[in-house]
Amino acid sequence: MDQRIVYFLSDQTGVTAETLGHSLLTQFNSQNFRQVTLPFIDTRDKAREAVKRINASGISKSLRPIIFSTLVQDDFREIVREANGLHLDIFDVFLDPLAEELQEEPTHEPGRAHGMSDIDAYMKRIEATNFALANDDGGISSNYDMADIILVGVSRSGKTPTCLYLALQYGVYAANYPLTDEEFENGELPEVLVDQKHKLFGLSIAPDRLRQIRKERRPLGRYSSAQQVSYEIRETDKLFRRYGIPHVDTTEISIEEIASRILESTGVERRVRP
Amino acid sequence: MDQRIVYFLSDQTGVTAETLGHSLLTQFNSQNFRQVTLPFIDTRDKAREAVKRINASGISKSLRPIIFSTLVQDDFREIVREANGLHLDIFDVFLDPLAEELQEEPTHEPGRAHGMSDIDAYMKRIEATNFALANDDGGISSNYDMADIILVGVSRSGKTPTCLYLALQYGVYAANYPLTDEEFENGELPEVLVDQKHKLFGLSIAPDRLRQIRKERRPLGRYSSAQQVSYEIRETDKLFRRYGIPHVDTTEISIEEIASRILESTGVERRVRP
Repeated sequence: MDQRIVYFLSDQTGVTAETLGHSLLTQFNSQNFRQVTLPFIDTRDKAREAVKRINASGISKSLRPIIFSTLVQDDFREIVREANGLHLDIFDVFLDPLAEELQEEPTHEPGRAHGMSDIDAYMKRIEATNFALANDDGGISSNYDMADIILVGVSRSGKTPTCLYLALQYGVYAANYPLTDEEFENGELPEVLVDQKHKLFGLSIAPDRLRQIRKERRPLGRYSSAQQVSYEIRETDKLFRRYGIPHVDTTEISIEEIASRILESTGVERRVRP
Repeated sequence: MDQRIVYFLSDQTGVTAETLGHSLLTQFNSQNFRQVTLPFIDTRDKAREAVKRINASGISKSLRPIIFSTLVQDDFREIVREANGLHLDIFDVFLDPLAEELQEEPTHEPGRAHGMSDIDAYMKRIEATNFALANDDGGISSNYDMADIILVGVSRSGKTPTCLYLALQYGVYAANYPLTDEEFENGELPEVLVDQKHKLFGLSIAPDRLRQIRKERRPLGRYSSAQQVSYEIRETDKLFRRYGIPHVDTTEISIEEIASRILESTGVERRVRP
Protein backbone atom coordinates (compact mmCIF):
# COMPACT_ATOMS: atom_id res chain seq x y z
CA MET A 1 0.00 0.00 0.00
CA ASP A 2 1.00 3.62 -0.39
CA GLN A 3 3.45 4.94 2.10
CA ARG A 4 2.53 7.90 4.21
CA ILE A 5 5.39 10.11 5.32
CA VAL A 6 5.16 11.44 8.85
CA TYR A 7 7.31 14.40 9.85
CA PHE A 8 8.26 15.38 13.38
CA LEU A 9 9.20 19.05 13.40
CA SER A 10 10.83 20.76 16.33
CA ASP A 11 12.92 23.77 17.22
CA GLN A 12 14.68 21.43 19.60
CA THR A 13 15.30 17.68 19.76
CA GLY A 14 12.00 16.45 18.37
CA VAL A 15 11.47 14.08 21.30
CA THR A 16 8.11 15.57 22.27
CA ALA A 17 6.81 15.52 18.69
CA GLU A 18 8.01 11.93 18.23
CA THR A 19 6.42 10.76 21.47
CA LEU A 20 3.12 12.49 20.76
CA GLY A 21 3.04 11.29 17.16
CA HIS A 22 3.93 7.73 18.05
CA SER A 23 1.09 7.54 20.60
CA LEU A 24 -1.40 8.67 17.99
CA LEU A 25 -0.08 6.65 15.05
CA THR A 26 -0.23 3.38 17.00
CA GLN A 27 -4.02 3.81 16.96
CA PHE A 28 -4.03 3.01 13.25
CA ASN A 29 -3.09 -0.50 12.21
CA SER A 30 -3.47 -0.56 8.46
CA GLN A 31 -1.04 2.15 7.55
CA ASN A 32 2.42 2.16 6.11
CA PHE A 33 4.23 5.04 7.79
CA ARG A 34 7.71 6.34 7.12
CA GLN A 35 8.85 8.58 9.96
CA VAL A 36 11.27 11.45 9.57
CA THR A 37 12.47 13.78 12.34
CA LEU A 38 13.49 17.33 11.41
CA PRO A 39 14.94 18.78 14.62
CA PHE A 40 16.54 22.13 15.48
CA ILE A 41 14.34 24.29 13.26
CA ASP A 42 15.47 27.46 14.98
CA THR A 43 15.85 29.95 12.13
CA ARG A 44 13.52 31.17 9.39
CA ASP A 45 15.81 29.59 6.83
CA LYS A 46 15.59 26.21 8.47
CA ALA A 47 11.81 26.55 8.64
CA ARG A 48 11.69 27.30 4.91
CA GLU A 49 14.03 24.38 4.22
CA ALA A 50 11.70 22.07 6.12
CA VAL A 51 8.74 23.30 4.08
CA LYS A 52 10.64 22.65 0.85
CA ARG A 53 11.58 19.17 1.95
CA ILE A 54 8.04 18.31 2.99
CA ASN A 55 6.52 19.68 -0.20
CA ALA A 56 9.05 17.83 -2.34
CA SER A 57 8.15 14.56 -0.64
CA GLY A 58 4.48 15.28 -1.22
CA ILE A 59 4.88 15.65 -4.95
CA SER A 60 6.22 12.16 -5.54
CA LYS A 61 3.69 10.50 -3.26
CA SER A 62 -0.03 10.27 -3.68
CA LEU A 63 -0.75 10.83 -0.02
CA ARG A 64 -0.04 14.12 1.68
CA PRO A 65 2.32 14.01 4.66
CA ILE A 66 1.32 14.19 8.31
CA ILE A 67 3.20 16.83 10.26
CA PHE A 68 3.56 16.70 14.04
CA SER A 69 5.19 19.85 15.23
CA THR A 70 6.24 21.46 18.47
CA LEU A 71 7.49 24.83 17.29
CA VAL A 72 7.34 27.36 20.06
CA GLN A 73 7.88 30.54 18.08
CA ASP A 74 4.91 31.94 16.19
CA ASP A 75 6.90 33.17 13.20
CA PHE A 76 8.47 29.77 12.53
CA ARG A 77 5.09 28.11 12.99
CA GLU A 78 3.64 30.42 10.38
CA ILE A 79 6.30 29.51 7.84
CA VAL A 80 5.95 25.80 8.48
CA ARG A 81 2.19 25.99 8.17
CA GLU A 82 2.66 26.59 4.46
CA ALA A 83 3.85 23.02 4.00
CA ASN A 84 1.37 20.75 2.29
CA GLY A 85 0.10 18.19 4.80
CA LEU A 86 -2.06 17.57 7.84
CA HIS A 87 -0.69 19.78 10.62
CA LEU A 88 -0.96 18.69 14.23
CA ASP A 89 0.78 21.11 16.58
CA ILE A 90 0.55 20.90 20.35
CA PHE A 91 1.36 24.57 20.86
CA ASP A 92 -1.38 25.60 18.42
CA VAL A 93 -3.92 23.69 20.42
CA PHE A 94 -2.87 23.70 24.04
CA LEU A 95 -0.85 26.85 24.65
CA ASP A 96 -3.74 29.33 24.68
CA PRO A 97 -6.01 27.47 27.12
CA LEU A 98 -3.02 26.84 29.37
CA ALA A 99 -1.94 30.50 29.30
CA GLU A 100 -5.46 31.59 30.14
CA GLU A 101 -5.71 29.13 33.00
CA LEU A 102 -2.34 30.16 34.44
CA GLN A 103 -2.94 33.85 33.75
CA GLU A 104 0.57 34.11 32.36
CA GLU A 105 1.98 34.77 28.93
CA PRO A 106 4.05 31.87 27.55
CA THR A 107 7.71 32.74 27.05
CA HIS A 108 7.77 31.41 23.46
CA GLU A 109 11.41 30.58 24.09
CA PRO A 110 12.48 27.42 22.34
CA GLY A 111 14.52 24.66 23.80
CA ARG A 112 13.16 24.60 27.26
CA ALA A 113 11.71 21.10 27.23
CA HIS A 114 14.75 18.93 26.59
CA GLY A 115 17.43 21.58 26.84
CA MET A 116 19.72 22.47 29.65
CA SER A 117 17.35 24.98 31.21
CA ASP A 118 17.84 23.00 34.37
CA ILE A 119 21.49 22.07 34.97
CA ASP A 120 20.49 20.55 38.25
CA ALA A 121 18.12 18.09 36.58
CA TYR A 122 20.84 17.23 34.06
CA MET A 123 23.35 16.43 36.78
CA LYS A 124 20.80 14.32 38.64
CA ARG A 125 20.23 12.19 35.55
CA ILE A 126 23.95 11.77 34.95
CA GLU A 127 24.59 10.86 38.57
CA ALA A 128 21.71 8.41 38.61
CA THR A 129 23.09 6.82 35.42
CA ASN A 130 26.54 6.50 36.98
CA PHE A 131 24.92 4.96 40.02
CA ALA A 132 23.04 2.43 37.88
CA LEU A 133 26.25 1.48 36.06
CA ALA A 134 28.29 1.14 39.25
CA ASN A 135 25.56 -0.95 40.86
CA ASP A 136 24.72 -3.05 37.82
CA ASP A 137 24.60 -6.81 38.13
CA GLY A 138 25.46 -6.82 41.82
CA GLY A 139 28.57 -4.72 41.06
CA ILE A 140 29.25 -2.65 44.12
CA SER A 141 26.83 -3.27 46.91
CA SER A 142 28.42 -0.92 49.36
CA ASN A 143 26.25 2.06 48.48
CA TYR A 144 22.80 0.48 48.55
CA ASP A 145 22.06 3.11 51.16
CA MET A 146 21.84 5.61 48.33
CA ALA A 147 19.55 3.44 46.19
CA ASP A 148 15.88 4.29 45.73
CA ILE A 149 15.19 0.82 44.40
CA ILE A 150 17.12 -2.45 44.14
CA LEU A 151 15.87 -4.73 41.39
CA VAL A 152 16.28 -8.47 41.83
CA GLY A 153 15.68 -11.20 39.28
CA VAL A 154 17.36 -13.84 37.16
CA SER A 155 19.81 -13.08 34.37
CA ARG A 156 18.03 -11.51 31.36
CA SER A 157 14.83 -10.62 33.16
CA GLY A 158 15.25 -6.94 32.21
CA LYS A 159 17.03 -5.53 35.26
CA THR A 160 19.79 -3.55 33.54
CA PRO A 161 17.76 -1.67 30.90
CA THR A 162 15.10 -0.88 33.49
CA CYS A 163 17.67 0.59 35.90
CA LEU A 164 19.23 2.66 33.11
CA TYR A 165 15.84 3.89 31.95
CA LEU A 166 14.82 4.88 35.49
CA ALA A 167 18.09 6.81 35.79
CA LEU A 168 18.03 8.57 32.42
CA GLN A 169 14.33 9.34 32.34
CA TYR A 170 13.58 10.10 35.96
CA GLY A 171 16.89 10.49 37.83
CA VAL A 172 15.91 7.57 40.07
CA TYR A 173 18.77 5.65 41.73
CA ALA A 174 18.25 2.01 40.82
CA ALA A 175 20.67 -0.80 41.61
CA ASN A 176 20.23 -4.38 40.52
CA TYR A 177 21.28 -7.71 41.90
CA PRO A 178 21.12 -10.95 39.91
CA LEU A 179 19.61 -14.01 41.56
CA THR A 180 21.83 -17.01 40.80
CA ASP A 181 22.50 -20.55 41.92
CA GLU A 182 24.07 -19.21 45.10
CA GLU A 183 20.81 -17.69 46.30
CA PHE A 184 18.75 -20.62 45.03
CA GLU A 185 20.88 -23.23 46.82
CA ASN A 186 20.83 -21.31 50.09
CA GLY A 187 17.15 -20.50 49.68
CA GLU A 188 17.93 -17.07 51.01
CA LEU A 189 19.08 -13.63 50.02
CA PRO A 190 22.49 -12.26 51.04
CA GLU A 191 22.66 -10.08 54.12
CA VAL A 192 23.33 -6.95 52.06
CA LEU A 193 19.92 -7.32 50.40
CA VAL A 194 18.01 -8.36 53.52
CA ASP A 195 19.24 -5.15 55.16
CA GLN A 196 17.54 -3.18 52.37
CA LYS A 197 14.45 -5.35 52.07
CA HIS A 198 12.11 -2.35 51.77
CA LYS A 199 13.93 -1.29 48.60
CA LEU A 200 13.74 -4.63 46.82
CA PHE A 201 11.58 -5.06 43.77
CA GLY A 202 11.44 -8.27 41.75
CA LEU A 203 11.30 -8.87 38.02
CA SER A 204 9.71 -12.15 37.01
CA ILE A 205 9.40 -13.57 33.52
CA ALA A 206 7.75 -16.53 31.80
CA PRO A 207 10.07 -19.52 31.20
CA ASP A 208 9.49 -19.65 27.43
CA ARG A 209 10.28 -16.01 27.00
CA LEU A 210 13.38 -16.19 29.18
CA ARG A 211 14.67 -19.15 27.20
CA GLN A 212 14.09 -17.29 23.96
CA ILE A 213 16.06 -14.27 25.19
CA ARG A 214 18.88 -16.38 26.64
CA LYS A 215 19.18 -18.46 23.48
CA GLU A 216 19.94 -15.34 21.50
CA ARG A 217 22.84 -14.77 23.82
CA ARG A 218 24.08 -18.34 24.31
CA PRO A 219 22.20 -20.87 22.18
CA LEU A 220 23.70 -23.96 23.81
CA GLY A 221 24.42 -25.18 27.31
CA ARG A 222 22.80 -25.08 30.70
CA TYR A 223 22.17 -21.30 30.67
CA SER A 224 19.38 -21.54 28.11
CA SER A 225 18.18 -25.07 28.83
CA ALA A 226 14.50 -25.60 29.65
CA GLN A 227 15.41 -27.28 32.90
CA GLN A 228 17.70 -24.54 34.19
CA VAL A 229 15.33 -21.76 33.19
CA SER A 230 12.37 -23.41 34.93
CA TYR A 231 14.46 -24.09 38.01
CA GLU A 232 15.64 -20.50 38.27
CA ILE A 233 12.15 -19.09 37.87
CA ARG A 234 10.66 -21.50 40.40
CA GLU A 235 13.34 -20.67 42.96
CA THR A 236 12.99 -16.94 42.28
CA ASP A 237 9.26 -17.14 42.98
CA LYS A 238 10.02 -18.87 46.26
CA LEU A 239 12.40 -16.08 47.26
CA PHE A 240 9.87 -13.41 46.31
CA ARG A 241 7.27 -15.15 48.48
CA ARG A 242 9.60 -15.85 51.38
CA TYR A 243 10.70 -12.23 51.67
CA GLY A 244 7.42 -10.66 50.54
CA ILE A 245 9.09 -8.87 47.63
CA PRO A 246 6.68 -7.05 45.30
CA HIS A 247 7.30 -7.95 41.66
CA VAL A 248 6.16 -7.42 38.12
CA ASP A 249 6.06 -9.89 35.25
CA THR A 250 8.20 -8.48 32.43
CA THR A 251 7.23 -11.09 29.84
CA GLU A 252 4.99 -8.92 27.74
CA ILE A 253 5.72 -5.39 28.77
CA SER A 254 8.14 -2.72 27.64
CA ILE A 255 10.95 -1.05 29.55
CA GLU A 256 8.78 2.06 30.02
CA GLU A 257 6.00 -0.07 31.42
CA ILE A 258 8.23 -1.98 33.83
CA ALA A 259 9.62 1.35 35.06
CA SER A 260 6.17 2.91 35.49
CA ARG A 261 4.82 -0.15 37.31
CA ILE A 262 7.77 -0.06 39.72
CA LEU A 263 7.36 3.65 40.46
CA GLU A 264 3.63 3.22 40.93
CA SER A 265 4.01 0.22 43.21
CA THR A 266 6.85 1.57 45.35
CA GLY A 267 5.75 5.19 45.44
CA VAL A 268 9.34 6.29 44.70
CA GLU A 269 9.28 9.89 43.51
CA ARG A 270 10.64 10.88 40.11
CA ARG A 271 13.62 13.18 40.82
CA VAL A 272 13.38 14.73 37.38
CA ARG A 273 10.76 14.56 34.65
CA PRO A 274 11.22 14.05 30.92
CA MET B 1 3.03 31.39 45.69
CA ASP B 2 0.20 28.92 45.44
CA GLN B 3 1.10 25.52 44.15
CA ARG B 4 -0.63 24.21 41.07
CA ILE B 5 -0.99 20.44 40.87
CA VAL B 6 -0.48 18.95 37.43
CA TYR B 7 -1.75 15.44 36.75
CA PHE B 8 -0.55 13.13 33.99
CA LEU B 9 -3.26 10.56 33.33
CA SER B 10 -2.72 7.52 31.16
CA ASP B 11 -4.10 4.05 30.54
CA GLN B 12 -0.47 3.06 30.09
CA THR B 13 2.87 4.35 31.38
CA GLY B 14 2.13 8.06 31.30
CA VAL B 15 5.31 8.81 29.34
CA THR B 16 3.46 10.55 26.50
CA ALA B 17 1.38 12.69 28.85
CA GLU B 18 4.49 13.59 30.87
CA THR B 19 6.47 14.54 27.77
CA LEU B 20 3.67 16.61 26.28
CA GLY B 21 2.92 18.30 29.58
CA HIS B 22 6.55 19.06 30.31
CA SER B 23 6.99 20.74 26.91
CA LEU B 24 4.02 22.98 27.56
CA LEU B 25 4.72 23.76 31.21
CA THR B 26 8.28 24.91 30.50
CA GLN B 27 6.70 27.81 28.60
CA PHE B 28 5.58 29.30 31.91
CA ASN B 29 8.26 30.58 34.25
CA SER B 30 6.41 32.03 37.19
CA GLN B 31 4.52 28.97 38.32
CA ASN B 32 4.95 26.57 41.14
CA PHE B 33 3.96 23.17 39.77
CA ARG B 34 3.69 19.87 41.59
CA GLN B 35 3.57 17.00 39.11
CA VAL B 36 1.80 13.72 39.75
CA THR B 37 1.59 10.79 37.32
CA LEU B 38 -1.42 8.48 37.53
CA PRO B 39 -0.60 5.62 35.13
CA PHE B 40 -2.43 2.41 34.18
CA ILE B 41 -5.97 3.80 34.35
CA ASP B 42 -7.39 0.82 32.52
CA THR B 43 -10.65 0.12 34.31
CA ARG B 44 -13.71 2.23 35.12
CA ASP B 45 -12.91 1.88 38.81
CA LYS B 46 -9.42 3.25 38.34
CA ALA B 47 -10.82 6.13 36.29
CA ARG B 48 -13.26 6.94 39.12
CA GLU B 49 -10.45 6.67 41.66
CA ALA B 50 -8.40 9.17 39.66
CA VAL B 51 -11.33 11.60 39.58
CA LYS B 52 -11.72 11.30 43.36
CA ARG B 53 -8.04 11.90 43.92
CA ILE B 54 -7.97 14.92 41.62
CA ASN B 55 -11.10 16.44 43.14
CA ALA B 56 -9.81 15.90 46.67
CA SER B 57 -6.60 17.74 45.80
CA GLY B 58 -8.66 20.57 44.34
CA ILE B 59 -10.59 21.15 47.53
CA SER B 60 -7.56 21.93 49.66
CA LYS B 61 -5.93 24.16 47.05
CA SER B 62 -7.15 27.44 45.72
CA LEU B 63 -6.09 26.68 42.16
CA ARG B 64 -7.76 23.99 40.12
CA PRO B 65 -5.49 21.23 38.80
CA ILE B 66 -4.22 20.89 35.25
CA ILE B 67 -4.85 17.49 33.74
CA PHE B 68 -2.83 16.15 30.81
CA SER B 69 -4.33 12.90 29.68
CA THR B 70 -3.77 10.29 27.02
CA LEU B 71 -6.69 7.97 27.60
CA VAL B 72 -7.49 6.02 24.47
CA GLN B 73 -10.87 4.61 25.42
CA ASP B 74 -13.87 6.91 25.17
CA ASP B 75 -15.66 5.57 28.24
CA PHE B 76 -12.69 6.12 30.53
CA ARG B 77 -12.18 9.57 29.05
CA GLU B 78 -15.80 10.41 29.83
CA ILE B 79 -15.42 9.42 33.47
CA VAL B 80 -12.18 11.34 33.87
CA ARG B 81 -13.67 14.43 32.28
CA GLU B 82 -15.80 14.85 35.41
CA ALA B 83 -12.70 15.76 37.40
CA ASN B 84 -12.46 19.41 38.31
CA GLY B 85 -9.58 20.98 36.39
CA LEU B 86 -8.30 22.15 33.04
CA HIS B 87 -8.36 19.12 30.72
CA LEU B 88 -5.82 18.81 27.92
CA ASP B 89 -6.15 15.48 26.09
CA ILE B 90 -4.25 14.67 22.92
CA PHE B 91 -6.74 12.07 21.80
CA ASP B 92 -9.64 14.51 22.21
CA VAL B 93 -7.92 16.94 19.92
CA PHE B 94 -5.86 15.01 17.41
CA LEU B 95 -7.52 11.63 16.95
CA ASP B 96 -10.45 12.77 14.81
CA PRO B 97 -8.50 14.81 12.26
CA LEU B 98 -5.96 12.02 11.99
CA ALA B 99 -8.64 9.35 11.49
CA GLU B 100 -10.27 11.46 8.80
CA GLU B 101 -6.97 12.01 7.03
CA LEU B 102 -6.04 8.34 7.15
CA GLN B 103 -9.58 7.22 6.36
CA GLU B 104 -9.33 4.63 9.10
CA GLU B 105 -11.07 4.15 12.43
CA PRO B 106 -8.68 4.29 15.40
CA THR B 107 -8.45 1.00 17.30
CA HIS B 108 -9.04 2.67 20.69
CA GLU B 109 -6.89 -0.08 22.13
CA PRO B 110 -4.78 1.11 25.03
CA GLY B 111 -1.18 0.38 25.60
CA ARG B 112 0.08 0.49 22.09
CA ALA B 113 2.47 3.40 22.46
CA HIS B 114 4.90 2.16 25.07
CA GLY B 115 3.71 -1.40 25.36
CA MET B 116 5.07 -4.55 23.85
CA SER B 117 3.02 -4.32 20.68
CA ASP B 118 6.31 -4.68 18.89
CA ILE B 119 8.53 -7.37 20.40
CA ASP B 120 11.02 -6.76 17.66
CA ALA B 121 11.46 -3.10 18.65
CA TYR B 122 11.84 -4.17 22.28
CA MET B 123 14.60 -6.63 21.45
CA LYS B 124 16.40 -4.05 19.34
CA ARG B 125 16.46 -1.63 22.24
CA ILE B 126 17.74 -4.28 24.65
CA GLU B 127 20.41 -5.42 22.22
CA ALA B 128 21.50 -1.86 21.54
CA THR B 129 21.71 -1.28 25.30
CA ASN B 130 23.82 -4.40 25.76
CA PHE B 131 26.03 -3.22 22.92
CA ALA B 132 26.46 0.20 24.56
CA LEU B 133 27.41 -1.43 27.86
CA ALA B 134 29.87 -3.86 26.29
CA ASN B 135 31.47 -1.08 24.28
CA ASP B 136 31.47 1.54 27.01
CA ASP B 137 34.66 3.39 27.81
CA GLY B 138 36.71 1.61 25.17
CA GLY B 139 35.63 -1.74 26.68
CA ILE B 140 35.61 -4.23 23.86
CA SER B 141 36.68 -2.76 20.59
CA SER B 142 36.43 -5.94 18.60
CA ASN B 143 32.89 -5.37 17.41
CA TYR B 144 33.08 -1.81 16.18
CA ASP B 145 31.94 -3.28 12.88
CA MET B 146 28.46 -3.47 14.39
CA ALA B 147 28.49 0.09 15.71
CA ASP B 148 26.40 2.81 14.09
CA ILE B 149 28.38 5.49 15.89
CA ILE B 150 31.56 5.59 17.98
CA LEU B 151 31.71 8.55 20.34
CA VAL B 152 35.12 9.92 21.27
CA GLY B 153 35.94 12.52 23.90
CA VAL B 154 37.63 13.07 27.23
CA SER B 155 36.46 11.51 30.48
CA ARG B 156 33.16 13.09 31.67
CA SER B 157 32.28 14.75 28.37
CA GLY B 158 28.94 12.87 28.28
CA LYS B 159 29.81 9.80 26.20
CA THR B 160 28.27 7.09 28.35
CA PRO B 161 24.80 8.60 29.02
CA THR B 162 24.54 9.62 25.37
CA CYS B 163 25.31 6.08 24.17
CA LEU B 164 22.79 4.61 26.61
CA TYR B 165 20.15 7.12 25.59
CA LEU B 166 20.68 6.42 21.88
CA ALA B 167 20.30 2.71 22.62
CA LEU B 168 17.24 2.87 24.86
CA GLN B 169 15.38 5.54 22.94
CA TYR B 170 16.24 4.71 19.34
CA GLY B 171 17.88 1.26 19.27
CA VAL B 172 21.02 2.84 17.82
CA TYR B 173 24.31 0.96 18.37
CA ALA B 174 26.67 3.45 19.95
CA ALA B 175 30.14 2.62 21.28
CA ASN B 176 32.41 5.06 23.03
CA TYR B 177 36.14 5.44 23.37
CA PRO B 178 37.78 7.75 25.91
CA LEU B 179 40.60 10.00 24.72
CA THR B 180 43.39 9.89 27.29
CA ASP B 181 47.05 10.74 27.73
CA GLU B 182 47.96 7.87 25.47
CA GLU B 183 46.25 9.44 22.45
CA PHE B 184 47.38 12.93 23.39
CA GLU B 185 51.03 11.95 23.71
CA ASN B 186 51.02 10.08 20.41
CA GLY B 187 48.98 12.80 18.75
CA GLU B 188 47.05 10.09 16.98
CA LEU B 189 44.14 7.74 17.37
CA PRO B 190 44.60 3.99 17.76
CA GLU B 191 44.34 1.84 14.63
CA VAL B 192 41.01 0.36 15.75
CA LEU B 193 39.44 3.84 15.59
CA VAL B 194 41.15 4.98 12.41
CA ASP B 195 39.70 1.92 10.67
CA GLN B 196 36.23 3.17 11.59
CA LYS B 197 36.87 6.85 11.00
CA HIS B 198 33.52 7.39 9.24
CA LYS B 199 31.70 6.31 12.42
CA LEU B 200 33.54 8.63 14.80
CA PHE B 201 31.75 11.51 16.41
CA GLY B 202 33.34 13.80 18.97
CA LEU B 203 32.02 15.33 22.17
CA SER B 204 33.72 18.54 23.21
CA ILE B 205 33.11 20.53 26.36
CA ALA B 206 34.19 23.84 27.87
CA PRO B 207 37.10 23.59 30.35
CA ASP B 208 35.23 25.24 33.23
CA ARG B 209 32.29 22.93 32.89
CA LEU B 210 34.47 19.84 32.62
CA ARG B 211 36.37 20.84 35.74
CA GLN B 212 33.12 21.36 37.61
CA ILE B 213 31.87 17.89 36.65
CA ARG B 214 35.16 16.19 37.40
CA LYS B 215 35.46 17.90 40.78
CA GLU B 216 32.19 16.33 41.85
CA ARG B 217 33.78 12.99 41.17
CA ARG B 218 37.32 13.59 42.40
CA PRO B 219 37.77 17.00 44.03
CA LEU B 220 41.57 16.80 44.31
CA GLY B 221 44.46 15.79 42.11
CA ARG B 222 45.48 16.06 38.50
CA TYR B 223 42.18 14.73 37.11
CA SER B 224 40.25 17.88 37.96
CA SER B 225 43.12 20.39 37.85
CA ALA B 226 42.75 23.41 35.58
CA GLN B 227 45.99 22.54 33.83
CA GLN B 228 45.10 18.94 33.03
CA VAL B 229 41.57 19.79 31.90
CA SER B 230 42.81 22.52 29.53
CA TYR B 231 45.52 20.23 28.18
CA GLU B 232 43.06 17.41 27.45
CA ILE B 233 40.60 19.69 25.71
CA ARG B 234 43.31 21.35 23.61
CA GLU B 235 44.70 18.00 22.53
CA THR B 236 41.23 16.64 21.82
CA ASP B 237 40.50 19.57 19.52
CA LYS B 238 43.75 18.85 17.69
CA LEU B 239 42.70 15.24 17.16
CA PHE B 240 39.23 16.28 15.95
CA ARG B 241 40.87 18.62 13.43
CA ARG B 242 43.57 16.19 12.35
CA TYR B 243 41.09 13.43 11.56
CA GLY B 244 38.23 15.67 10.48
CA ILE B 245 35.91 14.28 13.16
CA PRO B 246 32.52 16.05 13.41
CA HIS B 247 31.73 17.05 16.95
CA VAL B 248 29.25 18.77 19.20
CA ASP B 249 29.86 20.94 22.24
CA THR B 250 28.06 19.33 25.18
CA THR B 251 28.66 22.17 27.63
CA GLU B 252 25.15 23.57 27.66
CA ILE B 253 22.98 20.92 26.11
CA SER B 254 21.02 17.97 27.42
CA ILE B 255 21.46 14.27 26.69
CA GLU B 256 18.46 14.38 24.36
CA GLU B 257 19.97 17.27 22.50
CA ILE B 258 23.41 15.68 22.14
CA ALA B 259 21.71 12.54 20.78
CA SER B 260 19.53 14.47 18.32
CA ARG B 261 22.48 16.53 17.08
CA ILE B 262 24.49 13.36 16.47
CA LEU B 263 21.67 11.66 14.56
CA GLU B 264 21.05 14.78 12.53
CA SER B 265 24.71 15.27 11.70
CA THR B 266 25.53 11.64 10.89
CA GLY B 267 22.27 10.73 9.21
CA VAL B 268 22.18 7.49 11.22
CA GLU B 269 18.62 6.11 11.12
CA ARG B 270 16.62 5.52 14.28
CA ARG B 271 16.05 1.74 14.44
CA VAL B 272 13.06 2.18 16.71
CA ARG B 273 11.06 5.20 17.79
CA PRO B 274 9.86 6.19 21.24
